[in-house]
Amino acid sequence: MTEIRFDILGIGNAMVDVVTRVEETFLSRHDMHKGAMILIDDKAAETLYAAMPPGTESSGGSAGNTCAVAAALGARVAYLGKVADDQLGEVFAHDMTAQGVHFPSPRATGGAPTARCLILVTPDGQRTMNTFLGACVTFGEADVDEDLVAAAAVTYLEGYLFDPPAAQAAFRRAAAAAHRAGRQVALSLSDAFCVGRHREAFRDLVANHVDILFANETEITSLYEKNTFEEAAEAARADVALAALTRSEAGSVILRGDETVTVAAAATKVVDTTGAGDAYAAGFLAGWTAGKPLATCGRMGSVAAAEVISHYGARPEADLKALMANALG
Amino acid sequence: MTEIRFDILGIGNAMVDVVTRVEETFLSRHDMHKGAMILIDDKAAETLYAAMPPGTESSGGSAGNTCAVAAALGARVAYLGKVADDQLGEVFAHDMTAQGVHFPSPRATGGAPTARCLILVTPDGQRTMNTFLGACVTFGEADVDEDLVAAAAVTYLEGYLFDPPAAQAAFRRAAAAAHRAGRQVALSLSDAFCVGRHREAFRDLVANHVDILFANETEITSLYEKNTFEEAAEAARADVALAALTRSEAGSVILRGDETVTVAAAATKVVDTTGAGDAYAAGFLAGWTAGKPLATCGRMGSVAAAEVISHYGARPEADLKALMANALG
Repeated sequence: MTEIRFDILGIGNAMVDVVTRVEETFLSRHDMHKGAMILIDDKAAETLYAAMPPGTESSGGSAGNTCAVAAALGARVAYLGKVADDQLGEVFAHDMTAQGVHFPSPRATGGAPTARCLILVTPDGQRTMNTFLGACVTFGEADVDEDLVAAAAVTYLEGYLFDPPAAQAAFRRAAAAAHRAGRQVALSLSDAFCVGRHREAFRDLVANHVDILFANETEITSLYEKNTFEEAAEAARADVALAALTRSEAGSVILRGDETVTVAAAATKVVDTTGAGDAYAAGFLAGWTAGKPLATCGRMGSVAAAEVISHYGARPEADLKALMANALG
Repeated sequence: MTEIRFDILGIGNAMVDVVTRVEETFLSRHDMHKGAMILIDDKAAETLYAAMPPGTESSGGSAGNTCAVAAALGARVAYLGKVADDQLGEVFAHDMTAQGVHFPSPRATGGAPTARCLILVTPDGQRTMNTFLGACVTFGEADVDEDLVAAAAVTYLEGYLFDPPAAQAAFRRAAAAAHRAGRQVALSLSDAFCVGRHREAFRDLVANHVDILFANETEITSLYEKNTFEEAAEAARADVALAALTRSEAGSVILRGDETVTVAAAATKVVDTTGAGDAYAAGFLAGWTAGKPLATCGRMGSVAAAEVISHYGARPEADLKALMANALG
C-alpha cells in the first residue's frame, strides 16, 4: 500500500496565460463567443496575438491554477502536465515549484512550444479564452506516473484534457490507477463547449470513473442535456458520489447522496473571472482532503474564488491562508 | 531637413519584468538594498529566480515603459532597444507594437536571451530590482538610426544605458544626431546607484549634451554630490535648460532658467512603485511635445505616475487618455 504523500495530484494542460483587457467590440470583430474557450492553431494564435493589446503573462492552465491555489492554502500538491523546454516552460515550472507544487514532468524538446492561452477580459470581468495547445498535445499515457497517483488522496483532472489527442488515454490510466490504490478521482468539466465536443466520453467517465465532480451551471446542463439547473443537479446526484456545482454570484450547491448543502458566494468586486472555477475546486479540495465538513469545503471554495476574481490573473495575489483563517473565523 | 514624425524616441535596455511580492525579510536574506537596481549575471539570475515566489511577466525597461505610457496618452512614439529572437523578445515586441510604439530594432540571434528584471515588491509598495542584461549588452552605436533620431522631437535616453558596455557610445551618437537635426535630448538618471557607478560621465553628459533632465531626489543629490535637494536642484538649474525633479508623494519641481514650477503628486493608493519615474517622464514629455505649459506637463506626469503605481507592473492598466482628460478638466 503506497503512503499518501500528497493531498491533491492535478493533471492538466500546462500553459501560460496572456491576459489583456479589450472592449466588447473586439470579441464581435473576431467572432468570439464571450466566456468560452476555443482551441486555435499556431497560425491563428499568431494572428490573434498581433491584433491584441499589450498583455501580462502568468502561469495558468485550469488544473495548474487549482494546484497553485490549493498549495497556497497549505495542501500538499503535485502536478503533471507538459511544457516545452523554452522560456515560457521555464516560467510555468518556476511558478509551480515556487508555490510549493511538486512538478516532476520532463519538458518536451524539439517540438511545439509551451502552450499559451490568449485571454481577453471585457469590462464586465468576463474572460474569453483562445488556447494554442503547443507542447500539451504530446502529453499521453506514458506521462502518468502511477506511483504518484497512488500517493495522492485525490487525483484531479481537468475536462480540457479531452481536447489534446493523447490525453484521454492518460486521463483513463490515471483514474484507473487512483482507484486501484483506493484513492479518489475528481473531475472538473471546464467548459460547456468542451463538454459539447466530448459529451458521450464525459458521460461515461462521470458515471463510471469519477468520485467528485465540479461543474458550473452551463457545464452541468450541457453534460446531461437538461433545461434547468435543478434537473441537471439531480442527474449529477444520481451519477457521482459527490458533486460541487457552482452558480457564479448565486454561490454553489453540493450534493452527496441525499444531502444537499448550499453555500453563498463570498462578496468581492469582480475584475477578471479567469480561474474562478479552478480556485473554487482548490478551496473545496483543500478542505475535503483535510477532512472538513461539506459546508466548510464549499465556503473555502467560495473564499478562494472571490480572491482570484478580484484582480487580473488566475493565481492568488493575497495571503490566502490568512484570508481563509479570517473568513472561517 | 527631416520632418518630425515622432514626438518621442526612447532608447533603452529592452527587458521583460518578472514581478513578485515578497516580505521585507526576503530582501535582508538576499542582501538587497531596498529600492535600488543592481545588475546580476546569468548564474545569479538563475539562483535568485529559483528562490523567488511565483511571478507575473510583463514588458518593462525604463525607457520602454516611458514610451508605452506616452503612446497610451496619444503621443507619436518610437523605441530602440535590443531583445533576442526568443519568446520573451516576442512578448516585448508585441507589447510595444500593440501599444502603438514603432519598434524597428532587429532582434539579436545566437547570443544571450532577452533581458529580464527580477522585481521584488515589498508590502510598502517599494520595488527592488535585479537586472540580467542579456541581449541588451549587444546594443551599440550601430543600433542608432540617425534618421529616426532626426525625425523625433525629443530623443529620450535612460541612465541605465550607461551600464551595458557598448551603449554609452550609442547614447552619445544619438545625442549628437539629435542636436545636429535641431532636436532635443532628454535624459532620466534612472537610479542613484547607477549615477554613482558613472558619475563623471553623467556629469559631462548632462552639462554638455542634455536639454531636459529627469531625476528623483536621491539621483539628483547623488549626481551633484549635494546634501540637500535644494542645492542639487540649483546645480541642475545651472546645468540644463529644463529639469523635472520628482519627490515621490511630495510631487515634483520643474526648473527652467529663472522659472520654478512646483506640482503636487496625484492622489492614489500605492501598490507597486515600479515605473513611477518612467510614467512621470512620459506624461511630462507627452505634454511638452504637445506644447503645453510647464505646470500642465508636470501635472500630466503626476497623473500618469499615479495610475502606474496603483497596481502591479509598470505599464498602464486604465484608459490613460480618459484619465488625463478628466484630471486636466
